[in-house]
Amino acid sequence: VPPRPPLNEAISDHLARQISTGALKPGNRVPSVRLLSRRFKVSTNTVLHAFARLEALALVEARPRSGYYVRFRSSDALPAPRPGHSRGPAVPLALGERLPGFFRAMRQPGIVPLGAAAPGVELLPAQRLGRLLAKVARVRGASLLGYDPLPGLPVLRRQIARRLAALGASVSEAGVVTTVGAIEAIALALRAVTKPGDAVLVESPGYFGVLQLLRAQGLQAVEVPCTSEHGLDVELAERAMKRERVSAVVVVPTFSNPLGSLMPLDAKRALVSACAAREVPLIESDVYGELPFEGERPLPLVAFDRDGGVLHCSSFSKVLAPGFRCGWICPGRFQPEVEEAKFTQTVATPAVLQAALAELLFEGGYDRHLRALRRALKEQVQKAREALASSFPAGTRVSDPRGGFLLWVELPRGAVDAIELQRRALEHGISIAPGPLFSARDGFSRCFRLSCGHPWSPAFDRAVATLGRLCRA
Amino acid sequence: VPPRPPLNEAISDHLARQISTGALKPGNRVPSVRLLSRRFKVSTNTVLHAFARLEALALVEARPRSGYYVRFRSSDALPAPRPGHSRGPAVPLALGERLPGFFRAMRQPGIVPLGAAAPGVELLPAQRLGRLLAKVARVRGASLLGYDPLPGLPVLRRQIARRLAALGASVSEAGVVTTVGAIEAIALALRAVTKPGDAVLVESPGYFGVLQLLRAQGLQAVEVPCTSEHGLDVELAERAMKRERVSAVVVVPTFSNPLGSLMPLDAKRALVSACAAREVPLIESDVYGELPFEGERPLPLVAFDRDGGVLHCSSFSKVLAPGFRCGWICPGRFQPEVEEAKFTQTVATPAVLQAALAELLFEGGYDRHLRALRRALKEQVQKAREALASSFPAGTRVSDPRGGFLLWVELPRGAVDAIELQRRALEHGISIAPGPLFSARDGFSRCFRLSCGHPWSPAFDRAVATLGRLCRA
Repeated sequence: VPPRPPLNEAISDHLARQISTGALKPGNRVPSVRLLSRRFKVSTNTVLHAFARLEALALVEARPRSGYYVRFRSSDALPAPRPGHSRGPAVPLALGERLPGFFRAMRQPGIVPLGAAAPGVELLPAQRLGRLLAKVARVRGASLLGYDPLPGLPVLRRQIARRLAALGASVSEAGVVTTVGAIEAIALALRAVTKPGDAVLVESPGYFGVLQLLRAQGLQAVEVPCTSEHGLDVELAERAMKRERVSAVVVVPTFSNPLGSLMPLDAKRALVSACAAREVPLIESDVYGELPFEGERPLPLVAFDRDGGVLHCSSFSKVLAPGFRCGWICPGRFQPEVEEAKFTQTVATPAVLQAALAELLFEGGYDRHLRALRRALKEQVQKAREALASSFPAGTRVSDPRGGFLLWVELPRGAVDAIELQRRALEHGISIAPGPLFSARDGFSRCFRLSCGHPWSPAFDRAVATLGRLCRA
Repeated sequence: VPPRPPLNEAISDHLARQISTGALKPGNRVPSVRLLSRRFKVSTNTVLHAFARLEALALVEARPRSGYYVRFRSSDALPAPRPGHSRGPAVPLALGERLPGFFRAMRQPGIVPLGAAAPGVELLPAQRLGRLLAKVARVRGASLLGYDPLPGLPVLRRQIARRLAALGASVSEAGVVTTVGAIEAIALALRAVTKPGDAVLVESPGYFGVLQLLRAQGLQAVEVPCTSEHGLDVELAERAMKRERVSAVVVVPTFSNPLGSLMPLDAKRALVSACAAREVPLIESDVYGELPFEGERPLPLVAFDRDGGVLHCSSFSKVLAPGFRCGWICPGRFQPEVEEAKFTQTVATPAVLQAALAELLFEGGYDRHLRALRRALKEQVQKAREALASSFPAGTRVSDPRGGFLLWVELPRGAVDAIELQRRALEHGISIAPGPLFSARDGFSRCFRLSCGHPWSPAFDRAVATLGRLCRA
């Protein structure tokens, strides 16, 4: 059972809901501190903490000697991006050749990091992980020095299985294989269920890492348009599967990359059934699943799996330690093929890092960390949306995700091409991820992904303002 | 400059050379302790240490009240395996399906580990690595938590480049890309220089990990027979390249896997030239290069490279920490392609592990560790050869490597098939690596690889005796 959120969060969530449903409208006065403290039976200090949080989300503003009022947020007027249409032959961009800025951005010192989908290390429990790493190195050093045998370190697989079982997935410790990040997990899944020349159904726009893997493994992308709110449309996916024979489906159903979309529960259930009925393996990446802004953690596809056809991939890269490169796959009925592929690709996953993460999950406090992280990311995303609303040209569309830390921006007609925008941004020391990366076909040339993983600061406001200026052609 | 070996080693090396050249013959009395202590101007204690070492290598034996005599080693009578001939279509064994014992052996608790090519953790500086890991986690924890940007952690790349430059290779820090073990390095090299359907020249017998990568990437193996003494014959390789168009050559020139062979310097130079002349990229795995039993560390192929056509792959898995999965590639002129493939496959290599290894290399003492490791491995290999000589049927052939820790055993006609031997051995709690793994064609069915990475003990003697019994059909 996850710990109950503190009272101040319960109050701010309550008020945020009233604002989002329209029960409290822009300009309305929010009930007073005294009134709320009486109604919720908490100290005035607790209520003041709740207001501070709503202020950070730009939902309310204090007026001197008058109290708190619901703010008009300029970002509320931002329309959502339109579902993408990509055209042309399915050839993913070569990162190095056709997009030279991509690698340069990663190395440029002092860059404003709006490109890479990484959480700021300030948000991660660096000290605690350092301490645990030192502990396992001291206590179990020698036993962790050899090759970690397949399917991975038992103590970590146990913790992963326990959390998945709590979500209703039939996954046991034996059904978890640890990997070098979620990207290796997806690579192994594809290796296990496809052969070169096969077609694979993917989201459009969809994570470029998946497209690059398809390219590397000689696979064809069948792209299905997604909305920034609900992600993959299952009917469209079924139609595509009728039209073309696909060997697998790859999807990020919860806070997708780049859209940040969330498939509703029914759609998730329907997708699992549709794939099971056709015996098409369903590869799920759930790396953002632990990062909802509000409410319960959305269920992953594997929670609906009944026949082992879902290959559930995830990692600790977006929540604990990108640099540990520690992920996993629950390969369902494809476990033998996945283990063989894992042995061939990297033999094993670093044992000492798995042990440190297992220790952290075992010690407890992980859910508390996740709650703090979710709160921080929600604020960062909201601040980025505000910055976009105030500096980008009219007609700019921006996604409004309910989790994760990615925004998808669609520039109005007449704005600059996204690859040109990336080039100009790099010259100004700012990285972004241009839209054409996220499709194997031509398309999304006026879109880009903005990553809000880092604690917001005036430097980010200035960077967004600069981007707003640069995108005017 | 590597530190000078201690005096007792200088004396034992001197005597070992006299024995191997025949200046001292089996049955001869070795000069007395007193004489040697006078001649080398050292204490009698130092000479006694030198004799202890020669005893451990089964080169001399003490006779009560009479002194030390050159032993007749039964292993000296073991003939070398014959160069292999493999036939049939080039389809590497699927590890999981066609060889179910392979993965089972890795998981079976308490198994006598003669199968996996891993050094015993007792031989590795576990405490020191644990301490350094704790130190870097404490001091640089937060900065090592993010994705390590390509091409890898500068402090480690500097140390790697420094050691390669000392061998005469033109490799700078910028020309090193860190990887998840040498196996990822080879996978990236193949990805960078081939496309599915291409043919790749490999050693026969050759490391099965390479064959599995060819299989995974849709490549064809062109196998060239190797001798257990000198490895790949450059003339045969050139003939094969004339006959068939190959896109790459993959070779383990120094203490190969499984043969333990060492290509002579001239052959190495000739291979680099032959590939350069044909513009065929030459992928070198040098993971055993630091493990000669005597003398200088043999030069890698990259030391002869003049045009960036050698892709030098290696790792710390055989010398420091298999479980850290920390390797590297110096991709020469293919660096952009290799970096792109690295980003696609695993994004980054764990930073904190790279930092701990860099710290160890920087602190010094690495060469001292290597010397102790080489000495231990030499003894283990010799003891395994003795055990084989005394319990295997007449006509058994065994390689006599000059480094590394692998033996290649060829059973006489009428002995059991190696895959059947592996099955029987597993039932007796012993793992070996059967010959057919090491070719993409049928062949080597009466061969197996015996790994001598662990400190020898009576349990290993008993295991080899059991194998000797089991191999009689």
